Amino acid sequence: MAAQKTKGPIGLADFDPKENQFLDLWFHDSVEMAHGYRMSIKIKDVLCHYRSRYQEITIFETEKLGRMLVLDEITMLTEFDEFAYHEMIVHVPLLVHPEPARILVIGGGDGGTVREIIRHPEVKEIHVCEIDEEVIKACRKYLPSLASSFDDPRVQIFYEDGAAFVKEHPDTYDIIIVDSTDPVGPGQILFQRKFYEDMKRALSKQGIAVTQCESIYLHRDIIRHVSSFAREIYPKVRYYNTLVPTYPSGIIGFFFCSLEYDPVEDFSEQRAARIEGLRYYTPELHRASFILPLFGEKLIYSK
Amino acid sequence: MAAQKTKGPIGLADFDPKENQFLDLWFHDSVEMAHGYRMSIKIKDVLCHYRSRYQEITIFETEKLGRMLVLDEITMLTEFDEFAYHEMIVHVPLLVHPEPARILVIGGGDGGTVREIIRHPEVKEIHVCEIDEEVIKACRKYLPSLASSFDDPRVQIFYEDGAAFVKEHPDTYDIIIVDSTDPVGPGQILFQRKFYEDMKRALSKQGIAVTQCESIYLHRDIIRHVSSFAREIYPKVRYYNTLVPTYPSGIIGFFFCSLEYDPVEDFSEQRAARIEGLRYYTPELHRASFILPLFGEKLIYSK
Repeated sequence: MAAQKTKGPIGLADFDPKENQFLDLWFHDSVEMAHGYRMSIKIKDVLCHYRSRYQEITIFETEKLGRMLVLDEITMLTEFDEFAYHEMIVHVPLLVHPEPARILVIGGGDGGTVREIIRHPEVKEIHVCEIDEEVIKACRKYLPSLASSFDDPRVQIFYEDGAAFVKEHPDTYDIIIVDSTDPVGPGQILFQRKFYEDMKRALSKQGIAVTQCESIYLHRDIIRHVSSFAREIYPKVRYYNTLVPTYPSGIIGFFFCSLEYDPVEDFSEQRAARIEGLRYYTPELHRASFILPLFGEKLIYSK
Repeated sequence: MAAQKTKGPIGLADFDPKENQFLDLWFHDSVEMAHGYRMSIKIKDVLCHYRSRYQEITIFETEKLGRMLVLDEITMLTEFDEFAYHEMIVHVPLLVHPEPARILVIGGGDGGTVREIIRHPEVKEIHVCEIDEEVIKACRKYLPSLASSFDDPRVQIFYEDGAAFVKEHPDTYDIIIVDSTDPVGPGQILFQRKFYEDMKRALSKQGIAVTQCESIYLHRDIIRHVSSFAREIYPKVRYYNTLVPTYPSGIIGFFFCSLEYDPVEDFSEQRAARIEGLRYYTPELHRASFILPLFGEKLIYSK
């Protein structure tokens, strides 16, 4: 019966991808609509699709880009290009800090960030604070190339609100990685001054926070806003880019907020050379990714 | 009457954007379809749309990205981000060559490349070899922010086939810029070994050729192919990227094929500092743009 074919609590009861293999199905990412352009990805199958307490969770099998995680109709990752995002959000801060022992990941429920962190032998403890347990469940089931990293014995998962969590852990983490959604829905609070102040208190003495912060082409107001208060709070703030074709505009950037170390002067090429399985990160690219187009430099570093 | 409203020889006779201002019109770029994803751009008006001897020429007024030139359903440029492409295809080679006096542009009928070339006082002569006179006509009319550059007295336009043109001009140009379409239709010949050999002969003794060559994420076969023969023909071959959101995957790259000068060691920061009106290019970005993600380095520089 049709009802038995459903793959999640909501919807798709009548959808059987095997019976409908000639359908021309395209997922339209909702982010760029405000910018008068949009990206669409061709879909072969819907692996899961349901609403958690916090958001709508969808995992597709795409036609050409592997599996894809979508939250509230916004593309979180595809297997095709997620390495460009996860390698850069992790290896840049972890190779700058000389002893990254205790790491906090806020968000990151897909496991890609943790997969890159566990490549570092210096890391002793990884706390993942993901508000939505259902994201982790879905990714464990359908995206094992990322989420199997949660099985590493150094990993401990907290299903809590990230903003509240950092307040309760002063002077604790060598590195905090904010692997968040966009500043809508549950991720909104993570783009505010108060959160950046609380993160600073949660860092150990020479700690580093790295935060996902959108595209210099599309999200100039958000980036200018975060830059203005981050530079008041942290001694060193820099912004760097990575190339992710399935994100709006093809790039995404991160704020590197540091209490002591410089992201370009202080990183260890020797430790970088020992990391195996890389597809994107190189020491040369580490440096180059902090060099922005002129309009980006002005956006982030002017008064 | 409806027929009087047409803006070109073909089609759109019944289309009046003022009467249809609430239509939800999206242009779908045809390139990415093969890759299972595609970009769509919201359209406010169709400024011109007709078929020349060589291709279908369309210029849209978009909702948010300014005007857009489309050839054979492939996005050539939008006013939103064309500066990222044109500044990088021009200023990189022109600042590497110490005396760029004679320049050949193959393609480039929109005028954006010439607009950047004429910022260089060292340039004495600019030959533009564009096969399709209709592209230049359309751009002069609807994209004056680019095509008014053709009025510079140093510019001479040849409506000829670029591949034949280089054969007829041995030992002539300090720099050749191939500002071409994709390797389909009239641009196909420009991605072949023979053309790279002929270009070499058309260069002066220490000349440089820079060629548009697609995205390391999407066009790996083309790039590997061009890289393999370009490195046999030219003493120095490097590949560099620029960030163009409205191109497939958000990036596009160029082969820098040089008879003598190194693109990173040999360029003039002093001359760079004298160029006014830049939005993308900086000397630091010049260097950084040659640093590719690991998979791109392997694609281009491995045997």
